[in-house]
Amino acid sequence: MTTPTTSRSTLSPTELQHLDAYWRAANYLSVGQIYLLDNPLLREPLTLKHVKPRLLGHWGTTPGLNFIYVHLNRLIKEHDLSVLYVAGPGHGAPGVVANVYLEGSYSELYPDVGPGEDGLRKLFRQFSFPGGVPSHAAPQTPGSIHEGGELGFSLTHAYGAAFDHPDLLVACVIGDGEAETGPLAASWHGNKFLNARTDGAVLPILHLNGYKIANPTVLARLSHAELDTLLRGYGHTPYYVEGDEPALMHEQMARTLEQVYADISAIQRRARVDGVQERPAWPMIVLRSPKGWTGPKVVDGLPVEGTWRAHQVPLAGLSDSPEHLRQLEEWLLSYRPEELFDKAGVLRPELAALAPSGERRMGMNPVSNGGLMPRDLDFPDFRDYELAVPQPGVVDGESTRVLGTFLKGVMERNMNIFRLFGPDETASNRLDGVYAASGKTWEEPQLSTDLHLSPDGRVMEVLSEHLCEGWLEGYTLTGRHGLFSCYEAFIHVVDSMVGQHAKWLGTSREISWRRPVPSLNILLTSHVWRQDHNGSSHQDPGFIDLMVNKAPAVVRVYLPPDANTLLSVTDHCLRSREYVNVIVAGKQPELQWLNMADAAKHCAAGLGVWAWASNDRGDTPDVVMACAGDVPTLETLAAVSLLRKAFPELKIRVVNVVDLMTLQPQIEHPHGLSDAAFDEVFTTDVPIIFAYHGYPWLIHRLTYRRAGHRNLHVHGYKGEGTTTTPFDMTVLNDLDRFHLALAVINRVPHLKDAGADVRQQLLAKLAEHHAYVRATGDDLPDVKNWRWAES
Amino acid sequence: MTTPTTSRSTLSPTELQHLDAYWRAANYLSVGQIYLLDNPLLREPLTLKHVKPRLLGHWGTTPGLNFIYVHLNRLIKEHDLSVLYVAGPGHGAPGVVANVYLEGSYSELYPDVGPGEDGLRKLFRQFSFPGGVPSHAAPQTPGSIHEGGELGFSLTHAYGAAFDHPDLLVACVIGDGEAETGPLAASWHGNKFLNARTDGAVLPILHLNGYKIANPTVLARLSHAELDTLLRGYGHTPYYVEGDEPALMHEQMARTLEQVYADISAIQRRARVDGVQERPAWPMIVLRSPKGWTGPKVVDGLPVEGTWRAHQVPLAGLSDSPEHLRQLEEWLLSYRPEELFDKAGVLRPELAALAPSGERRMGMNPVSNGGLMPRDLDFPDFRDYELAVPQPGVVDGESTRVLGTFLKGVMERNMNIFRLFGPDETASNRLDGVYAASGKTWEEPQLSTDLHLSPDGRVMEVLSEHLCEGWLEGYTLTGRHGLFSCYEAFIHVVDSMVGQHAKWLGTSREISWRRPVPSLNILLTSHVWRQDHNGSSHQDPGFIDLMVNKAPAVVRVYLPPDANTLLSVTDHCLRSREYVNVIVAGKQPELQWLNMADAAKHCAAGLGVWAWASNDRGDTPDVVMACAGDVPTLETLAAVSLLRKAFPELKIRVVNVVDLMTLQPQIEHPHGLSDAAFDEVFTTDVPIIFAYHGYPWLIHRLTYRRAGHRNLHVHGYKGEGTTTTPFDMTVLNDLDRFHLALAVINRVPHLKDAGADVRQQLLAKLAEHHAYVRATGDDLPDVKNWRWAES
Repeated sequence: MTTPTTSRSTLSPTELQHLDAYWRAANYLSVGQIYLLDNPLLREPLTLKHVKPRLLGHWGTTPGLNFIYVHLNRLIKEHDLSVLYVAGPGHGAPGVVANVYLEGSYSELYPDVGPGEDGLRKLFRQFSFPGGVPSHAAPQTPGSIHEGGELGFSLTHAYGAAFDHPDLLVACVIGDGEAETGPLAASWHGNKFLNARTDGAVLPILHLNGYKIANPTVLARLSHAELDTLLRGYGHTPYYVEGDEPALMHEQMARTLEQVYADISAIQRRARVDGVQERPAWPMIVLRSPKGWTGPKVVDGLPVEGTWRAHQVPLAGLSDSPEHLRQLEEWLLSYRPEELFDKAGVLRPELAALAPSGERRMGMNPVSNGGLMPRDLDFPDFRDYELAVPQPGVVDGESTRVLGTFLKGVMERNMNIFRLFGPDETASNRLDGVYAASGKTWEEPQLSTDLHLSPDGRVMEVLSEHLCEGWLEGYTLTGRHGLFSCYEAFIHVVDSMVGQHAKWLGTSREISWRRPVPSLNILLTSHVWRQDHNGSSHQDPGFIDLMVNKAPAVVRVYLPPDANTLLSVTDHCLRSREYVNVIVAGKQPELQWLNMADAAKHCAAGLGVWAWASNDRGDTPDVVMACAGDVPTLETLAAVSLLRKAFPELKIRVVNVVDLMTLQPQIEHPHGLSDAAFDEVFTTDVPIIFAYHGYPWLIHRLTYRRAGHRNLHVHGYKGEGTTTTPFDMTVLNDLDRFHLALAVINRVPHLKDAGADVRQQLLAKLAEHHAYVRATGDDLPDVKNWRWAES
Repeated sequence: MTTPTTSRSTLSPTELQHLDAYWRAANYLSVGQIYLLDNPLLREPLTLKHVKPRLLGHWGTTPGLNFIYVHLNRLIKEHDLSVLYVAGPGHGAPGVVANVYLEGSYSELYPDVGPGEDGLRKLFRQFSFPGGVPSHAAPQTPGSIHEGGELGFSLTHAYGAAFDHPDLLVACVIGDGEAETGPLAASWHGNKFLNARTDGAVLPILHLNGYKIANPTVLARLSHAELDTLLRGYGHTPYYVEGDEPALMHEQMARTLEQVYADISAIQRRARVDGVQERPAWPMIVLRSPKGWTGPKVVDGLPVEGTWRAHQVPLAGLSDSPEHLRQLEEWLLSYRPEELFDKAGVLRPELAALAPSGERRMGMNPVSNGGLMPRDLDFPDFRDYELAVPQPGVVDGESTRVLGTFLKGVMERNMNIFRLFGPDETASNRLDGVYAASGKTWEEPQLSTDLHLSPDGRVMEVLSEHLCEGWLEGYTLTGRHGLFSCYEAFIHVVDSMVGQHAKWLGTSREISWRRPVPSLNILLTSHVWRQDHNGSSHQDPGFIDLMVNKAPAVVRVYLPPDANTLLSVTDHCLRSREYVNVIVAGKQPELQWLNMADAAKHCAAGLGVWAWASNDRGDTPDVVMACAGDVPTLETLAAVSLLRKAFPELKIRVVNVVDLMTLQPQIEHPHGLSDAAFDEVFTTDVPIIFAYHGYPWLIHRLTYRRAGHRNLHVHGYKGEGTTTTPFDMTVLNDLDRFHLALAVINRVPHLKDAGADVRQQLLAKLAEHHAYVRATGDDLPDVKNWRWAES
């Protein structure tokens, strides 16, 4: 290592020497985690018995992650900063874990893995080992809110964490492979939504190490000029740290971080002290360093350091190659562990002194642990927002519009810890009541034709489900609350993100030191049954199917049939922790069923018999008509009404399901009804005609173990949809009142013959519908204007 | 309209006048579609009875789409070009349909909607009307390969269409809302994968009309300098057409398109004639024009044209507002229809002459209809690639590596109509045999450390599932063939895209003039059971669940258990048309079961009894052990082996399922087995222990109507996964041989007691496994080395 010759160095020679030693220590611990079972300080010659039988882990990105971490430590100490470290590149855990161990965070949370040789042995052994820790910066990793297992979300998480944390600096390392993904490519525009006055700063660090698993990366191969143009086009001022000579790189990085910190301070001062309201060109760093930096340069005659061969384990097949084993030993010793650790295997004090202490350590930054005690929201009473429902099925209401007034109430009381997210659809989804509390975040210039925009708005709209979801994840993972409203069909855009978040929550629930973070709340409106005008691409209720496969401890699905049940459910979800709550609710005017008292009781039970709509009076009914979802509920009650007129003696029991998880057996889901309770409601021996919001098979999948399952006939969305009318959508999928009534006639034994006339009438009605809709483009007036009170 | 005063106009005054008239005609027809039921030429005063009862459609983007279309027509005629028009903005159909009608394509494909007043009436009425046509450029729309219902995919589709179509110009209109999505943001880098010599050109036209549904767009609000920097950073040379004065805009657009065409020609000449190999800065256009251009400027005192209020229908509530009706009439008349259409309602000949003719019309471009008779692939015989399997369960093989050799054979014979796509994982997925036929597409500079890169490579790798999927969609929709290989867990990244493509195929199958395009083939490898080293984020088999909800006419799912079945299945899929084929197969060394003759027979049947592994000899067995997927098959056979040693008298039938759709009832899926055939294989009254690759509930969802369903016990992935060993993954989810054998003992009545000792042995074996894996980080040798021949 040569000392840089520049006359005005940021680092003194001693500082440089210490920094480099600390980095070597982190690299040493990283290689140790990937390779070693024993002999952690290499106090005896390395033999096969010291090495793991299966070599798992990724070296390539690690030295760069370590380099950044070490230098951020310096910056934190220099300026007493609060920094969150987001490691975007996949498989970065060897580096992050090495650093949180060196700074003492790891041993504080996992006392078993203490300082010293025994702790090192455990640290090494547990990595990617059965019963140990993952190769990603998972929930097990102190200081992490971002796993890096699926690539592309680091920068959205970083922005989510920075919102409303004015004193926080989020250092976000972006892998150059990760940068090719769609979500990351869109994330650069997060800087258009960051308020320099009230939010923290995000420092993107694009780590160009040149290669992915097997290919060069797109960004690393651009000319400097083209890359620079692109990053400036993203609205940043890029600084470059490029090279492979450690001493020169240390000086460059230290100087650059000082510059970046000065820029950020100046930006924040301008916004906070001078009151300037304009979007600044936030600084960012491009770190161009070799993949697998400081690792083996050549293995078996092929170049490794600086190439794709350094991606995973640069030296493999150790049991077949004594030469590889020798190279591994040489590699480990190149870090000169004896200079780094004392006899007991403890990091030398002059190096340990380089790390920040207490909560300034990035492994212990409070925000990374849900804010260390996420604040509860201050709630208005949701009952105060009741939509007056004097009796069931006579007044119309737009459920989400009512919800919007409640969300306004929540927002007003929680201005700095609650945000609403949506892809340009808050008004379309009729939640625009919230604008009375706060506008939409907008840091760009405004025009007179704009509405409800505000630089410090709490409603975040961008036409990217990825950004909405990622921002909300970052926001809740750092202890704040929010809700993401989305067109139902397009929530599939973030299937993968939500799935990964559910996994994170599932794991994090089992880690004692992790505080329970607020739930991820997703409101699906503009749903399949009311996308008649937008057509088939906007019709897909399959997100629920995806969610029910995820951990039952985490996933909740609610289908409130009207406004007051929606209020009750949302209040419950916003109070909850560590769940993914999916709420499906309509935005169009629709009949309302329950007053607030009944709604709250019904939602607490999750499902229940609607006695006012039933006429079985506690007897065994002839048929159970069950429904879940607003449109299925409407059609079911309209069918009940038809049937009761046609067959006054027919005993119908109406069951409404709000909490879909109640249908599952208790052993499958904590909300699952006991078999006895289920059988009590659904019976075991009469036909159940179940009108369901989504794909009908899901109800079978949830209930196939129930005694009455063989009597269950589910109507739902079968993929039949196009541009048509609302009621025709239900007809196309046999979910309409006429098909439901026909199903009853066909399934209730004594109606098989007795119902022949009514069957003919219903079929005639369907024919009338078909003719009318084609002729007028509209639904039959008696269908559109039907109300329960008539029956 | 004023005539532009520039001295060197591209357009003569007459040309300008005609172009503008043609554009007015397109705008008139667009407004007509949104509003009118009758009175299409406004020959009588407009009344409510002429207007649709439900106003559906989107005006905002339409005049811009029309403007671009009209000018592309001019360019096509001027230079005899083959141009494909991709309309990215949502709800663009009123514009696209208006244009394909004006040029005659529409009436040619839909003779019922002919030229003249009657045809116009039908054209207007059918739009967004029950039984009519959608508001997006759907499969029903001539010339379209891209719906625009879900935003974000236009540019990937455009590149997919341009690959290997050297004479094609793909004009891709990108909405400024769409540009905020992740997939679109990543798509800009498609230009790094386009070969100027052998591919066509893509002309991105970024349409900045300023607003989305309710918000300004990010890109439209950037300063000119920042936007220009961004687009140059994307590698383009941007040209700007900006304004709202039609005459000036026509001249600007015509001149700009000439410039752009000259640039493209020069680029292609340099590459094709001069043989220059360097990535050019392809031109692109920024069209900045008012949202809802030429529509009502003010409605109810509020500005509409140029604002978000122009997004959907600028004039609504006509039945309540005579003023709105009057404004609508004024708006329609502002296009002066009497100058555009003759007495019969036919476009005046001097205007009709502006459109190209025959296949030069964008509505009739052959590539937009699957290449107008997609060529079949020239196949090598897949049997020639057989992996020798002398007897079941003794030799190891890497199934995907064997497939790689077959794909090489396919590629060699079909160099210009077959591509392989994958996110940096072709080698990781062990398909690297193909590199012997062709390298990986790479237009950037190369380094000595690169491997298998080539400017005209046929293997496309970029770390974005969105780009891989979108490119393949565009490639197959224009008549060519391909396969996308992906880590199983990360295919969820494109859930939504694949779902939309399945919908497109489902609709397009029903349109007589659409040629059957090649299937979308997805190979999922690096699957859930072999992601032990990558941990929980890489483990998710839920994509299958998503797919089985899609149209049964379109979706196929295959789980070949070994190399020869994988060859047979892939050959079948590559030959097929208009399906989404999902193949799940392993890449790790694993036991092989079937020789090629047996494999082909087994795959043709879709599922079958493996007689060589069964000992029921045609009798009713005591238990059916079913399996689907490579790892479940291995564990099932290992369990069978254990059980046969322990209980020589126990009659076991082994059933393997390759084609998952066979399990469904025949009425649900064309591949579904008849009940008789199903019962014959699975029996109706003995326990069925089913080891399944994915979430176990899916098997219940597919089979709940089968007679034997109550005897069915499914083992599969229950979400239990982490960083561990391969066998431990199966143990964590009760899918391992020991749990399967225990399930048999617990379910077969006569083993309840007789099996007590064996049950204890199996539990002891599980305990031994747990201890061993924690101690060594490896699996038990007798588990790892097990082969069927031993039994």
